[in-house]
Order: sequence, then structure tokens, then C-alpha cells
Amino acid sequence: MPSSPRVADRAPDKLPPRVERPRGERQTSAEAPRGTVWLYGQHVVAAALANPARRLRRLLLTEDAESALKQLPNLARLGQWPGAPERVDAQRLDRLLGRETTHQGAALLADLLNAPMLAQALERPGPVVVLDQVSDPRNVGAILRSAAAFGASAVVVQDRHAPEETGALAKAASGALETVPLLRAVNLSRTLVALKAAECWVVGLDAGGTKLSGKALSGRRVVLVVGAEGSGLRRLTRETCDEIAGLDMPGGMESLNVSVATGVALYELLQKNG
Amino acid sequence: MPSSPRVADRAPDKLPPRVERPRGERQTSAEAPRGTVWLYGQHVVAAALANPARRLRRLLLTEDAESALKQLPNLARLGQWPGAPERVDAQRLDRLLGRETTHQGAALLADLLNAPMLAQALERPGPVVVLDQVSDPRNVGAILRSAAAFGASAVVVQDRHAPEETGALAKAASGALETVPLLRAVNLSRTLVALKAAECWVVGLDAGGTKLSGKALSGRRVVLVVGAEGSGLRRLTRETCDEIAGLDMPGGMESLNVSVATGVALYELLQKNG
Repeated sequence: MPSSPRVADRAPDKLPPRVERPRGERQTSAEAPRGTVWLYGQHVVAAALANPARRLRRLLLTEDAESALKQLPNLARLGQWPGAPERVDAQRLDRLLGRETTHQGAALLADLLNAPMLAQALERPGPVVVLDQVSDPRNVGAILRSAAAFGASAVVVQDRHAPEETGALAKAASGALETVPLLRAVNLSRTLVALKAAECWVVGLDAGGTKLSGKALSGRRVVLVVGAEGSGLRRLTRETCDEIAGLDMPGGMESLNVSVATGVALYELLQKNG
Repeated sequence: MPSSPRVADRAPDKLPPRVERPRGERQTSAEAPRGTVWLYGQHVVAAALANPARRLRRLLLTEDAESALKQLPNLARLGQWPGAPERVDAQRLDRLLGRETTHQGAALLADLLNAPMLAQALERPGPVVVLDQVSDPRNVGAILRSAAAFGASAVVVQDRHAPEETGALAKAASGALETVPLLRAVNLSRTLVALKAAECWVVGLDAGGTKLSGKALSGRRVVLVVGAEGSGLRRLTRETCDEIAGLDMPGGMESLNVSVATGVALYELLQKNG
């Protein structure tokens, strides 16, 4: 869990003001008070409700979404919700979150998660994923999801060049934001040096190096560094890596979406006998 | 190439009317005359210019984008463009394509590609990817890109449940739409039967089957069938498969983004000695 458990001790008696934009105004996600985020989508809301580290503020559900959520396991907090969730219709959520948002009838206003310290994140097993200026929240979300699926311990982004924890990122992560720690580093090179000091082996994913091989790296704690599409790893980041390794592909590394490349690399790292 | 070469024989003398929406109107891609598409992004436009099968109609470039494109190889058609490309400023493209579109100063109005016949697509080597109701153009685009990177022969989508060839799809494909045939099947099960008749081995990617192994499938022409996130393969699609196989992952199949899952599966199919 990304931080120590904190229960929903402030809902619903200290609700923040409603923050809905007028109908028709262009937006992709609702404004939320500072330090909070509107999470949406049944799977995302269910994962947040199941995460004791999430402080919850408001829960808006359509009738259908509430029925669906109640059928999921591990949703003790839905039953314990003080009073009932706010019953809304789908149009209300369209107005709140934007019409193009696939909210599936469920929206949850919650506090942003506290990122754990690096040392704390390293207590979890598995490789660490470090993203060098990957800025698209959908890509970061998909990478969190792959990190959960392939057993990575944490995802580290650079604070200034990474998306905030937004509803769109959480939706793309499909619940993985609640289970995989997302750390924000001020200085990525310094973080890589700290990871080396913690006996990690830092592999930059890029063309022009050796072929990435889970078997060859077997037994090592790997830090996988992935750069933005197009620009790739920055010079300083690249120079800080212990080695540069690329994926084995006929068509060339540059062709892959960054979240696909990261997913494939994490998969390869699992192939210990390949 | 997706179809037989057709040159830009109708540009610019038979230009379609300008189709710009008023400033500020919500849109993510410009309206294009029926049968055409606005492609945007330097890499996408360059790939379309390099594809002899693309009939080109209008080319709008900022000064910077034109300089950048001229430095790319294989852009003979840019030099041969009748007259000069239309010089525009970035704001004009913002209005044409929508402000959130990363056009990078380059937009090309082109005819939609003619999809080849299935038999024609099978002349290319590599596995065939079949998408069962994957509807997000960004996912379909990213899958085309992985298909190019990992040497798949074609991507087949179901006509009624797949996105049109749009600028967003082309942008996510990052040029791969010009090199990997995208086929639209009316009836997916019938297409799978036709692929079986062409001696392909149809593998449905789903949990609950064997572990997907490139080594085990080595020597076979594989058709990889991927379902939509959440719902997965439809019953009839699943029953038509020769086998169901899942990715080896600790965290469970359902956790992956569909384009990541497809990319990892194509990567695994390349591992003949794994």
C-alpha cells in the first residue's frame, strides 16, 4: 500500500463544496479541491474503496453502478459509508466529469495518495520502473497497470515532467494506482544513484544497447528506465544507467508506444529461463 | 503496401472545399470529405507521403514542420508536391484539428486507404492480429504500431465495432497505418474460419487457457485474437479459436491495457527458442 492506512474519517461531515462546471463547458475531468482528485469508473472506484490508504470524501453512484459495486468482493467500505452514497443519474456525472469520460456511473472524490519513500517502496519485490519525462497520463496509467500485472515494485516519475494524479491517469491504471506506489522524484539522476546504492542494477531501455534478457539479469534487482517517445532517454539519465538494453524486435524500438515498450520489457524481465 | 500504388494525381487541381469549423467549437479532429481523412503529426504525415498507396489531396505545413520533414529520408513526394505545400501557422492547424491535437505543424488531407483482400494480406509474413470489438482508436493505433515493430502481417478489426480510420488512430499508429494492412471484417467468426482454411492456427488471447509460448507455436502461422478489455473474447469468437492461451503474468491477465497485452503477445510469438 502506498502509505499508512487512513480511514474515511472526514466524510461526509466535512464535505468540500460542490465543484461542478456549467453544462457544456469543455473539460475532461472535474475540478477537485486542492489535494483531492475525482476518480471515476467502476473498477477504479472499487479499487479506491478497497484501499485503506485512500481518504474518501464523496461517493456519487448511479443506481446501476451501486448494484454492480455491491457485487464485487472486498468492498467493506461501501457498506460502512456514512449514510448512503449520493445517488445521482448519469447525466449529472456527465456534467461533473465531462461527457467523454467513461465514468460508468461511479465517481469518488478522494485525497491524493501520499507517495511512499523510495526505501519503503523497495520493500516490495520486483523491478522498479523509472519514467524519464513520460507525460501522457494514459501512458503512465497503462504502465502502472503493467507494473501491477508483471509484479513491479514501484513506478517513479520525474516530478516536474510527469502528469499529476488525475482521474484520467487513474482510469488508465484501472485500479493499479491503488496497489503500485507512484513516486515523484525531483531529480531523476539522483534517484538512480540512490537506487544503485541500494544495490539495484539500472537498465536503460533504448536502442543501440544489448538485447534485454530476463535470463541474463536473473538474480539482480533491476531498475528499468524508460524515456519519452521520440526523444528517448536524456543524456544524463542514459549516462547514469549501468547498461543500455533494447527489446528484440524486427521493426525497431522507435516504433513502439511507450506503455507497450514498458510492458514488453517487464514481461521479458520475468523470463528467467528464456 | 495496403493497396496498389496510386499517385497524387488529383492534387491540387481538384481540391475539396475547405472544411474548417469555427474557432472554439469542440472537436478532436477536423471534418474531412467522405472517403478522406486529415492525418496530422510530422511522423504520420511523413509516413503517408512515403506511401505510394496514399492518394494525397492537401498538405498544410508550418515553416518549422516543412524544414523538419525535408530532413527526413524517403520524402520524394514532398519535393514533387504540385506547387508548394500550403504554408500555415500553428494556430490555423489548432482551429482545423482541435487545440488538443498534437499536429506538430503538419496536416495532410488524404484518401482513406483501400483495405486489401485477406489473401493479399497473408502474402506478408508474420502473425495476423484479429481484434474482437476493440473500439478505442488509440488502442487500435498502438496495436498497428506493435504489429509493425514485431513483424505481424496484418490487423483485422470487425467493421461495425471498430473505429474508422481517423487522425487519432493514425497518430497513435505513428506511421504504421501506412505499412501494416488494416482489414475490416463484416463477420469475424467467418474470417477466422477463412484463416483456418488458409492453414493458420487461431489462438485466442485470454485467461484460463495454456500459457502463450512462441516456442510451442514455432513453425505455425499464428492468428492472434484479442478481445476488448473487460468483456474479453465473445463466446462465438472464443469457440472458433483452435486454442486459448494467456500471458504468463503474476498479476492476472485482466490487468493489462489491450494494446500492451497485444504487444506482449506478439513479442512472445517471436521467442522461438524461449
